[in-house]
Amino acid sequence: MFSKVLVANRGEIAVRIIRSLRELGIKTVAIYSTADRESLHVQLADEAVCVGTARAQDSYLNEKNILEAAIGTGATAIHPGFGFLSENAEFATMCADCGITFIGPQASVIDLMGNKEHAREQMKKSGVPVIPGSESYIVDSAEAERVANQIGYPVLLKAAAGGGGKGIRRIENARQMKRSFEAAQSEAKLSFDDDRMYLEKIMENVKHIEVQVFRDDFGNAVYFPERDCSLQRNKQKVIEESPCQLITNTQRKELGQIALRAINSIDYHNTGTIEFLMDHHHKFYFMEMNTRIQVEHTVTEMVTGIDLVKAQVLVAAGESLPFTQNDIQIRGHAIECRINAEDPKRNFMPMTGTINYLYLPVGNLGMRIDTALYPGAQVTPFYDSMIAKVIALGHDRMEAIEKIKRLLSEMVIMGITTNQNFHLAILNDLTFLKGKATTTFLENSFLPRWKGDETTS
Amino acid sequence: MFSKVLVANRGEIAVRIIRSLRELGIKTVAIYSTADRESLHVQLADEAVCVGTARAQDSYLNEKNILEAAIGTGATAIHPGFGFLSENAEFATMCADCGITFIGPQASVIDLMGNKEHAREQMKKSGVPVIPGSESYIVDSAEAERVANQIGYPVLLKAAAGGGGKGIRRIENARQMKRSFEAAQSEAKLSFDDDRMYLEKIMENVKHIEVQVFRDDFGNAVYFPERDCSLQRNKQKVIEESPCQLITNTQRKELGQIALRAINSIDYHNTGTIEFLMDHHHKFYFMEMNTRIQVEHTVTEMVTGIDLVKAQVLVAAGESLPFTQNDIQIRGHAIECRINAEDPKRNFMPMTGTINYLYLPVGNLGMRIDTALYPGAQVTPFYDSMIAKVIALGHDRMEAIEKIKRLLSEMVIMGITTNQNFHLAILNDLTFLKGKATTTFLENSFLPRWKGDETTS
Repeated sequence: MFSKVLVANRGEIAVRIIRSLRELGIKTVAIYSTADRESLHVQLADEAVCVGTARAQDSYLNEKNILEAAIGTGATAIHPGFGFLSENAEFATMCADCGITFIGPQASVIDLMGNKEHAREQMKKSGVPVIPGSESYIVDSAEAERVANQIGYPVLLKAAAGGGGKGIRRIENARQMKRSFEAAQSEAKLSFDDDRMYLEKIMENVKHIEVQVFRDDFGNAVYFPERDCSLQRNKQKVIEESPCQLITNTQRKELGQIALRAINSIDYHNTGTIEFLMDHHHKFYFMEMNTRIQVEHTVTEMVTGIDLVKAQVLVAAGESLPFTQNDIQIRGHAIECRINAEDPKRNFMPMTGTINYLYLPVGNLGMRIDTALYPGAQVTPFYDSMIAKVIALGHDRMEAIEKIKRLLSEMVIMGITTNQNFHLAILNDLTFLKGKATTTFLENSFLPRWKGDETTS
Repeated sequence: MFSKVLVANRGEIAVRIIRSLRELGIKTVAIYSTADRESLHVQLADEAVCVGTARAQDSYLNEKNILEAAIGTGATAIHPGFGFLSENAEFATMCADCGITFIGPQASVIDLMGNKEHAREQMKKSGVPVIPGSESYIVDSAEAERVANQIGYPVLLKAAAGGGGKGIRRIENARQMKRSFEAAQSEAKLSFDDDRMYLEKIMENVKHIEVQVFRDDFGNAVYFPERDCSLQRNKQKVIEESPCQLITNTQRKELGQIALRAINSIDYHNTGTIEFLMDHHHKFYFMEMNTRIQVEHTVTEMVTGIDLVKAQVLVAAGESLPFTQNDIQIRGHAIECRINAEDPKRNFMPMTGTINYLYLPVGNLGMRIDTALYPGAQVTPFYDSMIAKVIALGHDRMEAIEKIKRLLSEMVIMGITTNQNFHLAILNDLTFLKGKATTTFLENSFLPRWKGDETTS
């Protein structure tokens, strides 16, 4: 087992990882930018090394300084958390070159799954259903029309070389195809000197369903009950739950088997999450795989009672998975609200400031608040605005919702505006309560109706 | 179901009850003394009524004012918590007379189990093993000697009329009996004008093992995994755990059946806890029954995932138990440390003051801190010195201990001295770690060695 691990992250996830490492009896090294000198993760770690100035590029993304910090402190492994360097294959390779264990999958797998097209091809090969689209490049509008007729409108036309929104068109029907194709293709030619095009079905009224998986060096692999992360705004998850109440036990097992097929086919190591879209026929389509721990792993931990970060560390150290598929049982329903330092009434503008009063309603059964906040903590403009994760576990979904509403209404964060009321309004919304929210619900249905307080009506 | 419940208590237990009531959608009424105007339970309740001045006798024990508060606010039930009026049969009767549901067992059962001799007789009738002793009053030293020879020395000689330590003698062997008996008997005669004497075996090197039980109006009865509360100082529990690692599944079931026999025999309603002593042969002896929720119910909640206060409310409202024996599974190991405002270095003198900084390490899996503390809260001299309960759940006992050590070392309570270091020292002690601590361990073995810091050596 590692005797010392460097945590290459900040904020609540760094705190969360440090705590699990400490319980495992492993010494911890924090890294920090000059903006984070007083941060909780720095205070909790056994050692802390400043790796650069406030800008993430100079500090939390500064591969060289981070590796030097690990070598200098004698840390033999690095936990990257999420964001920053967590899906950076180059960094994983650099770690290996320095003889330091990167707590995550192999660099080659990070690389493979980080490329959307390669990942899609790999999943198709593994028998995982993907979002319907063209098999290869499309050269003219006639072929585009033929493919679109097969998979059904609306479709998304994308330049193979893609990026910055150039060469992308949403196409509703056959009549629009010819003109749109030619316009998009010439735009692609002009922008990238590459006129190869792709076509993909646009999935509407779908839920975001994801399955976390775990696999060790010995090929033991398990899947966890799915998470429903359909509540999103601006491509960011807002509320996550586990399990999804629309999914039956049979579907859960089928989905789990698909996920296991996927990770076995790429010899996956450690944990990761496969994200699917689920249509109203409850058919699943692969979107992408995150080759790291995610923000919302917490609801899975609450609902199964398993510490996923501890398992990451054990598996990275070469131990076998500390649980079997049979140990993974659903013990109720868990829900998480991401608390952001932002002003929902001003288009969710990120907010900064000093926490001058903090009341976290710790107490009673089935609650958890993961945060790096403390009275006096600074929220700076340099990093992500997510400052806390409030999680509740209930026997059923309604109990979990009642509990998280109580937690949100008791929690007091002063000195900064947060999205607490936004969450409370969602939690009181009828579509949400019925479990029917899809990925576009918040932006297309909820927000236009929302008055800014704890209700929508 | 009740629409409004009055919580006749203060501090962490009032807060804990209010939170469960709120999640059940029930309105809450807090009561408070003039010393508790700013207390958290007052802030969290929907309504609050001042029932008297600081002295408990004038406020939290003021039966008439509390009943008037319930009637005045339209509360139809009273949850007494623990301490104060929770085991007061007269108050339970007064509630019934006013048409208010007392959330607890019937007054007659409170009365029965509140009388040590009656409880012992009742348990013997029910086939529950009791601490060996004389069957009835002993009139002379010859009979005392005969009984003592049967049950084995050392024995405790007690005046039937008892009280204030008068007429009590510890007797080590037959040689001491005659003189001690006569001295104790004449002391009893002088003090109480009643020279009837009892004799009871003194149980040494025993563990305090208790079993919480629950029974509804329909006769459905369940028992919970036992709690080991052997770590005591000055007759107060300090650390509690569940389950007891020395007890096998077979013994657990046997003990559970004994406990069920006891509550069925007295038509018990709601929850209660039967306390046993366990000797080194793993034989159990009934000590007493607490006819209320206990401080340490939290470890049972953590280890089973069941909210016991919610169940109390449901059962008191005439619903059937919301779980069966089969739903009660052991999901790991839970441990609780009672945080007191006291100075262990000055003979545990109670401390008072204002909380001027508070950091509660909320976050990660398997933790819970039940407390009414908040930044700015006052700890006054009027009530119990217990200010927080820190609880950890781990997959096994060692993980729970590692977790609670982490929680205690992260927690910061400024403005008042607490027993945090005393707990950390116990948690690092070898006898404790081996699970071998008996009821006299803290006072006879640990404290004489303790240096006042986080270790004993």
